Amino acid sequence: MRPQEIIAVKRDGGRLSDAYIEAFISGVTDGSWADYQTTALVMAMFTRGLDAGEQSAITRAMLYSGRVMDLSDIDAPKADKHSTGGVGDKTSLVIAPIAAACGVAVPMVSGRGLGHTGGTLDKLESIPGYNVRLSTARFKNVIRKCGFGLIGQTKEIAPADRKLYALRDATATVPYIPLIVASIMSKKLAEGLDALVLDVKTGSGAFIRKYQDSLELARELCSTGREFGVRTEALVTDMSQPLGKFVGNAHEVFECIQILRDEAEPSMRPTVELSLELTARMLTQCGIARSAAEARSMAGAALASGDALDRFARNIELQGGDPRVCDRPRMLLDPKLKPFVVEAKRSGYIASVDTFAVGRAVCDIGGGRVRAEDGIDHAVGFSSEIKIGDRIRAGEEIGLLYCRDLRQARSVSEKLRDAYKISDKETRRPKLIRASI
Amino acid sequence: MRPQEIIAVKRDGGRLSDAYIEAFISGVTDGSWADYQTTALVMAMFTRGLDAGEQSAITRAMLYSGRVMDLSDIDAPKADKHSTGGVGDKTSLVIAPIAAACGVAVPMVSGRGLGHTGGTLDKLESIPGYNVRLSTARFKNVIRKCGFGLIGQTKEIAPADRKLYALRDATATVPYIPLIVASIMSKKLAEGLDALVLDVKTGSGAFIRKYQDSLELARELCSTGREFGVRTEALVTDMSQPLGKFVGNAHEVFECIQILRDEAEPSMRPTVELSLELTARMLTQCGIARSAAEARSMAGAALASGDALDRFARNIELQGGDPRVCDRPRMLLDPKLKPFVVEAKRSGYIASVDTFAVGRAVCDIGGGRVRAEDGIDHAVGFSSEIKIGDRIRAGEEIGLLYCRDLRQARSVSEKLRDAYKISDKETRRPKLIRASI
Repeated sequence: MRPQEIIAVKRDGGRLSDAYIEAFISGVTDGSWADYQTTALVMAMFTRGLDAGEQSAITRAMLYSGRVMDLSDIDAPKADKHSTGGVGDKTSLVIAPIAAACGVAVPMVSGRGLGHTGGTLDKLESIPGYNVRLSTARFKNVIRKCGFGLIGQTKEIAPADRKLYALRDATATVPYIPLIVASIMSKKLAEGLDALVLDVKTGSGAFIRKYQDSLELARELCSTGREFGVRTEALVTDMSQPLGKFVGNAHEVFECIQILRDEAEPSMRPTVELSLELTARMLTQCGIARSAAEARSMAGAALASGDALDRFARNIELQGGDPRVCDRPRMLLDPKLKPFVVEAKRSGYIASVDTFAVGRAVCDIGGGRVRAEDGIDHAVGFSSEIKIGDRIRAGEEIGLLYCRDLRQARSVSEKLRDAYKISDKETRRPKLIRASI
Repeated sequence: MRPQEIIAVKRDGGRLSDAYIEAFISGVTDGSWADYQTTALVMAMFTRGLDAGEQSAITRAMLYSGRVMDLSDIDAPKADKHSTGGVGDKTSLVIAPIAAACGVAVPMVSGRGLGHTGGTLDKLESIPGYNVRLSTARFKNVIRKCGFGLIGQTKEIAPADRKLYALRDATATVPYIPLIVASIMSKKLAEGLDALVLDVKTGSGAFIRKYQDSLELARELCSTGREFGVRTEALVTDMSQPLGKFVGNAHEVFECIQILRDEAEPSMRPTVELSLELTARMLTQCGIARSAAEARSMAGAALASGDALDRFARNIELQGGDPRVCDRPRMLLDPKLKPFVVEAKRSGYIASVDTFAVGRAVCDIGGGRVRAEDGIDHAVGFSSEIKIGDRIRAGEEIGLLYCRDLRQARSVSEKLRDAYKISDKETRRPKLIRASI
């Protein structure tokens, strides 16, 4: 089957048979399709559309372009949480230890930050020595010992997706729901899970900003998960402002440890609330809790008792990191970075936040990647205790910018100040959890 | 301007500004756009559409990706003919010498055969020693001395098109009118012409088969040519059966020389008729003839007098070939190839010809290329004196196949036999010239 024949079908708005989709994905995997043929077909998919059957077929073909992890020798229900990505979105580091403390095995395969969003792997690497590149055997061993492991995508996990995603990123074909579903689910299904909870972000800091689109994405993710025999639930959650207090790698880990130490500040409450809610879903799905109320109380107890913190310390040690960060989270922060105050331009109510701009600002000072091969400055970041609906006066502090260069601080803090829109009218505070599927 | 931003505009059905199109074409030319970005945008153009302004902007950007030939020191009107490609379509070798004999300078930059069609360069190379790779200086010198030159596309002529065409061919994005127009016209406009005549083929052996589409292509080609200040006319002509008697490189040159010797057999008449008609258009456009009737009579006279044959002999000599083929055209044919008779399966009228299949059959025996890097066997070919509307009896000869391998001859002649559909009903003979624009 020549690539041209398959491309021509979708070019003309036709439906791709399973055999065509398998030929395409195996061609991507083994390199027999040229990249320029792959992107032509992907653009035809984007502009002509894919139906539910084609979406499943792509998910399946990408999943089986690699291997499904065999965790059958771990005697616990396996579950994971996945977020579609946001700014200040750090719940994984809270959820995994709480869920583990409650008896779930969490084989979390995460990504790096790209674009305006952070990535779990980059955050973890702010912990001195922490290693996210484990062999499958060692990863399983870590899970067996502390209940969860955190690694990056390996060569065995959906290799077709890895290649396809990089090409989509370079050709403006990322924001299309069926391809997003296939990309996320092929990787998550490769973890060999019993249950999966999805955190689909919506709003100015999300990849999919419109609520209706986020809702559709959540539904498609759930139906695909269920089709493949994995209990799947999704929450659509607010990303119209950064989640919690901090944005920036080391600062976000700091926030998570504060939470696990049960020392969360008020501005960190949304992180706590969302983490507990997502963990509770995992517990009911795994049959560990019989009701939502019981699940919430179990998760809360694991946090309050310090069990989750112990699990995190144990995990850090097992993955080669310095577990003393759990006792002294300030270790993570670089005292050389003096905070630069971002001030409100005028008085009024915070009406909206350009969360994308906040994420980009932290990238610009070195906290994120512009290109996949770029390095990261883990210490830089931004903190804010001001949320939508809050009242502020001209000259008061919106937040603090931690960066290395005073001149850069000036121009970036200007962007941050502009990202917070202030209005005379009182504004409603956004609900954190918008929908549950 | 990042490629992604430009791609996203067309992905969403927007209009590309001239600046965007220039950035795209210069990115293709200098390699700063990756091939996979180029094909993604081309597919978005194909599926979302291009308007007339975008089509002109692409033509202009591709034209100026290279250089326009300066033929101002040749004191004659410059004109060319271009065909969209067909089977047995050999008129260039008749038109160029006739037009030259009538006082036109013809700087003909031609292509090689690809797919099921033949290419002028491949045909010329059946003449021993004929060189289609001349420097621009030598090319101009040849035109100055005999009135016409025939070469392949150089690095200076629309280099963006060269790259883009190869990528379109590999990604099923060739058959889209605005891109076809930009591809043809960017090359033809680079010849520095005063006038251009286009032969847009229609029917089973053409790249654009449907009459309405061919008509649209002809109109778009003409309006683009005129927009760039070149007098442009087009004929839409029949390609529902092979043109003239022969298909195959050396055989087609043989047919042309027979015509130039004024020794055309009856089955070669369509080649003569179309060549004279296209040449006549060139003569009126160049102001050499004042009316269509005068132009036809001038062209006919140049043929009958032997002037055109003399020009061809002179051209062959100037381009390094053996001009004796003009005296003894049989020199071109390989006597080792015994003709294999293709017989009619049943009695009746020839109702239609799958001309694409005839072209493919000649490719299959080595007469054409499957891939651009393939070699060519100039001697193989097919001849037929049977045309649509003719009566034939079962077992009578449809044509003769000239190939090297008896076993191959059997299977290919089967395909050829199937390509000629025979019906009990009398069929109307197709008109050679379907429309004039």
